[in-house]
Amino acid sequence: MNFRSDNEAPVNGVILQAIIDANSGFEESYAYDSYSLKLQKTMQQLFGCWCDVVPLVTGTAANSLSVAITTPAYGSIYCSKEAHLLNDECGAPEFYSAGAKIIGVDGNEGKINTETLDHLLEATGVHGEHECMPSTISITQSTEAGTLYSIDEIKQFNQIKQKHQMYLHMDGSRIANACASMGCSIADMTWKNGVDVLSFGATKNGAMIAEALIIFNPKLGKEIKRMRKRAGHLVSKMRFISVQLIAYIQNDLWLNLASHANKMAHKIYTNLKGTHDFVYPVQANEVFIRLGVSGIKKLQEKGFLFHIWPGSKDIIRLVCSHATQLSDVDEIIKALKK
Amino acid sequence: MNFRSDNEAPVNGVILQAIIDANSGFEESYAYDSYSLKLQKTMQQLFGCWCDVVPLVTGTAANSLSVAITTPAYGSIYCSKEAHLLNDECGAPEFYSAGAKIIGVDGNEGKINTETLDHLLEATGVHGEHECMPSTISITQSTEAGTLYSIDEIKQFNQIKQKHQMYLHMDGSRIANACASMGCSIADMTWKNGVDVLSFGATKNGAMIAEALIIFNPKLGKEIKRMRKRAGHLVSKMRFISVQLIAYIQNDLWLNLASHANKMAHKIYTNLKGTHDFVYPVQANEVFIRLGVSGIKKLQEKGFLFHIWPGSKDIIRLVCSHATQLSDVDEIIKALKK
Amino acid sequence: MNFRSDNEAPVNGVILQAIIDANSGFEESYAYDSYSLKLQKTMQQLFGCWCDVVPLVTGTAANSLSVAITTPAYGSIYCSKEAHLLNDECGAPEFYSAGAKIIGVDGNEGKINTETLDHLLEATGVHGEHECMPSTISITQSTEAGTLYSIDEIKQFNQIKQKHQMYLHMDGSRIANACASMGCSIADMTWKNGVDVLSFGATKNGAMIAEALIIFNPKLGKEIKRMRKRAGHLVSKMRFISVQLIAYIQNDLWLNLASHANKMAHKIYTNLKGTHDFVYPVQANEVFIRLGVSGIKKLQEKGFLFHIWPGSKDIIRLVCSHATQLSDVDEIIKALKK
Amino acid sequence: MNFRSDNEAPVNGVILQAIIDANSGFEESYAYDSYSLKLQKTMQQLFGCWCDVVPLVTGTAANSLSVAITTPAYGSIYCSKEAHLLNDECGAPEFYSAGAKIIGVDGNEGKINTETLDHLLEATGVHGEHECMPSTISITQSTEAGTLYSIDEIKQFNQIKQKHQMYLHMDGSRIANACASMGCSIADMTWKNGVDVLSFGATKNGAMIAEALIIFNPKLGKEIKRMRKRAGHLVSKMRFISVQLIAYIQNDLWLNLASHANKMAHKIYTNLKGTHDFVYPVQANEVFIRLGVSGIKKLQEKGFLFHIWPGSKDIIRLVCSHATQLSDVDEIIKALKK
Repeated sequence: MNFRSDNEAPVNGVILQAIIDANSGFEESYAYDSYSLKLQKTMQQLFGCWCDVVPLVTGTAANSLSVAITTPAYGSIYCSKEAHLLNDECGAPEFYSAGAKIIGVDGNEGKINTETLDHLLEATGVHGEHECMPSTISITQSTEAGTLYSIDEIKQFNQIKQKHQMYLHMDGSRIANACASMGCSIADMTWKNGVDVLSFGATKNGAMIAEALIIFNPKLGKEIKRMRKRAGHLVSKMRFISVQLIAYIQNDLWLNLASHANKMAHKIYTNLKGTHDFVYPVQANEVFIRLGVSGIKKLQEKGFLFHIWPGSKDIIRLVCSHATQLSDVDEIIKALKK
Repeated sequence: MNFRSDNEAPVNGVILQAIIDANSGFEESYAYDSYSLKLQKTMQQLFGCWCDVVPLVTGTAANSLSVAITTPAYGSIYCSKEAHLLNDECGAPEFYSAGAKIIGVDGNEGKINTETLDHLLEATGVHGEHECMPSTISITQSTEAGTLYSIDEIKQFNQIKQKHQMYLHMDGSRIANACASMGCSIADMTWKNGVDVLSFGATKNGAMIAEALIIFNPKLGKEIKRMRKRAGHLVSKMRFISVQLIAYIQNDLWLNLASHANKMAHKIYTNLKGTHDFVYPVQANEVFIRLGVSGIKKLQEKGFLFHIWPGSKDIIRLVCSHATQLSDVDEIIKALKK
Repeated sequence: MNFRSDNEAPVNGVILQAIIDANSGFEESYAYDSYSLKLQKTMQQLFGCWCDVVPLVTGTAANSLSVAITTPAYGSIYCSKEAHLLNDECGAPEFYSAGAKIIGVDGNEGKINTETLDHLLEATGVHGEHECMPSTISITQSTEAGTLYSIDEIKQFNQIKQKHQMYLHMDGSRIANACASMGCSIADMTWKNGVDVLSFGATKNGAMIAEALIIFNPKLGKEIKRMRKRAGHLVSKMRFISVQLIAYIQNDLWLNLASHANKMAHKIYTNLKGTHDFVYPVQANEVFIRLGVSGIKKLQEKGFLFHIWPGSKDIIRLVCSHATQLSDVDEIIKALKK
Repeated sequence: MNFRSDNEAPVNGVILQAIIDANSGFEESYAYDSYSLKLQKTMQQLFGCWCDVVPLVTGTAANSLSVAITTPAYGSIYCSKEAHLLNDECGAPEFYSAGAKIIGVDGNEGKINTETLDHLLEATGVHGEHECMPSTISITQSTEAGTLYSIDEIKQFNQIKQKHQMYLHMDGSRIANACASMGCSIADMTWKNGVDVLSFGATKNGAMIAEALIIFNPKLGKEIKRMRKRAGHLVSKMRFISVQLIAYIQNDLWLNLASHANKMAHKIYTNLKGTHDFVYPVQANEVFIRLGVSGIKKLQEKGFLFHIWPGSKDIIRLVCSHATQLSDVDEIIKALKK
């Protein structure tokens, strides 16, 4: 009964079959195969606009290449203090951007407070060239706290980035969960409201090894192919990455898988609200509960796998995935109720 | 009839099945899964020694991380003028090493001439701190010209690296073809004769997406995990990379696949020697023929796929792979004989 | 009447004369001149220990090379939230360290709180390779707030760095002011209490263009000459930098100049304490007063030059230097008293 | 009798006096002083055009910032195989450009052969994203061999750079010697014929510590101030750098000093031609003579200082400077005649 991470889940059957089917005969290498070409069109249909689609193998690569094309080495990136970009990539964004500065911004529920951000940006410039140039705002959707930015909030980031002549990046490692939960179009979630670059996640939601960097702003990343190659991310048999992404977005598979994960999380919430201390609103597929040390121990002894949240000793994170069984959810609800 | 690259070949069935079999249930993510742990042991058995095994998705990443752990930013890397490391990775080794200098060394048949290398290294040091510090020798086995370094030659590199206090890296993108052709143990090919770090290729020889960086020298790469993460190469569902490598080296699959590819190349050679101009000795799975412009055109018109060698207009490269059919080889021999 | 920065002051006459005297005949270039060689010995006498002395032209270079030799690219640096290293060098430490992460630590009076630091470091390691490796603690002496770390506090940093296997860097841009104020030996201030690397400032305190990186820990910076060259900081006529540093530390000039500056600052404090709101203790040559917007305006109108502290609207910083005239201090006291 | 390097010569008296005169009172720091502002105008008058002037302390910094603004990390720089940029800066251009590739091009007399360069560039592009993007051509004037590119040759580079959409950088470490020798305007030498960025040297020709990066192309280096700061090259008391450059270009001082150096070199040549083997034409202030090992030994025994050219054992380089005495030249001619 694994609630530790959606990264630990297996691959969805449809996607696995697509990989198997793609293994027929020779295909041009280095992303010039027919699947990678098809992926461009399929994604453009999904988003309803031109975009440059760069298949990749990790979210770290997607995030890091994103900031590398929006942020010069002397620039700075503003993100939530909880952001994966800031805390959990061992400096990958710094590596890819040749040393840009990442600045954590305060806020609640894992989100950047837009007023705080605006004030912070207003205060820059005094030091002139002694200060890094504010270049990128990066938001995570759904956030590291399992919460969601509303479309209105995204619009506010759009205004702020325009005011300060910056770019807007969205870390969409779990964007499927956000789209499924909010019921809005992915176009509204992204480019229609100012997102210039998107890290589009798929691995956590049923793919094997497949993420994509989506560039909406045509001024950005003109040499992204060279940058991907240079980073060691031009997989030679790219067809096997691209085909996963095609299968993932066809027939709403991505939304269906995410919906299931969200429902599982929501069920935990609805069964335990009132009796349990939920640290953040449960809006996608993650559940944070302040459980106490002894409660945690008991849950562990019953064989449940989950993370104690770093920095705390009494908060657990439960992640539901496309592969989370209803029976496991029932079990953990039962165990927690005791 | 594709002789363009072994990168364009499909995945071997045994390896694909291993991937499918690995898709059962949850597994710890980020290379702490059971397959990745098993891979360490399986590889150590193959090499007959302690080594640190770092599964990766591209040879570029393996090469670049290799030089990043052997070469400081102020250091230099000596390789063949034909080396992939120098010419074909869009500066990835420079990126990973924070700007080390790669120096192409002259030689014949795609190889570094050891005397030339030694003379070059002897001449360094005059400029003191104005010069980069010679740090790494990188050899490709089999080479970009489809040729092989003998064990004796590797021993010479070992002597040179010790004399100049450098490290020895082997780009083994096609090391299986080298081992299969030379019939020697991979231990003799590598650590027993001074190789400190190896880029162990599998993708070109039947894997889907799987390479490994093998560190033999325990002084090197103590923080290689952080370096891999930082480069965006810590695949979350790593089990699917590791399981390929396990299947690949079990039951001599890697050698059998490479043997087949080598035989196909050798057959082309034995049928055309005397009548055709072979640019390099055919020692592994690549064949270079000086064909002339009109000969090339005819071959293309018959539907054969291959590369005209960059820098030339009349030389073709034919690459045989694990998936090259005997009938295709017969066809191209027939076509070339005309 | 310039209280804006000690950087705006002219060069002390003794140092200027030393430069003039050094301009006789030819001297070997690139720091192999007789002055640069003498500097090594003179500095080693000053510190009473072996140390490697690297003359430089800016404090930014000294700080950045410091962290570059103590912090790998995947490492992190802990400093005060007010630190110049974090805020005022446009990412130079990130550039030199190939992208290390700088983490601001809370504290009072421009200092790192040692308990906060220790707790922070205790909490690392949970994320494994997803997190940067804590590598360096950097303290500024005197601090950006014009305050001082006591010898006891420095000893605490020494304990913390040993506990967590890190290095200790001191940004001594104004170390002369600290030494003059505390009356302790520079050995006690630095290597005797665990400082591994020191940015030794001179420009702010009367030199023309002269700083030095001092390496006490012999394990660090073995290739610092190559690193300096590579950074474009190997001045060809280095004699003119080194001779400044020799003159600066001979005959206690550095302490005498700093004492004067400190006294000027102290005079402002003693004359206005009780009536004015001093933001930080006045312990060296900097005075921070919360003056209010209208008070600031009046002071400006009288021709006094000073900085309104960034982030505030009502705090002024007054910096006294070796060249600050007593009469100017009297003037500003008079003006502030009104 | 020092013929080793113009870097070893003292500072010209006019420039030293200018430094002394600048040491009066307070001046704004970080290049906002009155001298640095005046420098912009003075240089623009010299060049007869708009240009952005960035005072620096080393030629390495000027060269490295130059290529950093013309070459992306995935780009490549083409220069002579003898270029300082390639051989003598311990990888500084790689550091500043975040790892661009420097490619040495063949030619005679220390120069790039323009046809060879054009062929080389024509051959790029075949590898697509696997290859670095040709971005910058860098020529040295006068060259490392003491020779000169004619205006016609510079025009050819202009054509080549336009054809391949690249930038043209001139390493003018000894541009004064070139201008004095050719008698042409520095405008013709540079921006009028396509030079986008110039490293304008002064230190070798009589300054103390002063070089300048001159940006002619307004598209380049918009954030050069941040880049300079970030590199640790924003000297706080910049007035002392800028005033050197002002004095250097006023009243044709730079040309007069270079003329003297050139004449000294020319005198050696005219007195020894016919009897001695001059390796390169003597066109500026450097003389290369193939002397033989025993001849070199004799010259050394007589107390002459000079470099044996790296890579050779029998070639000496004699450099004349603004401070070379006619009597020293007569002495060395006499010694060589024996």
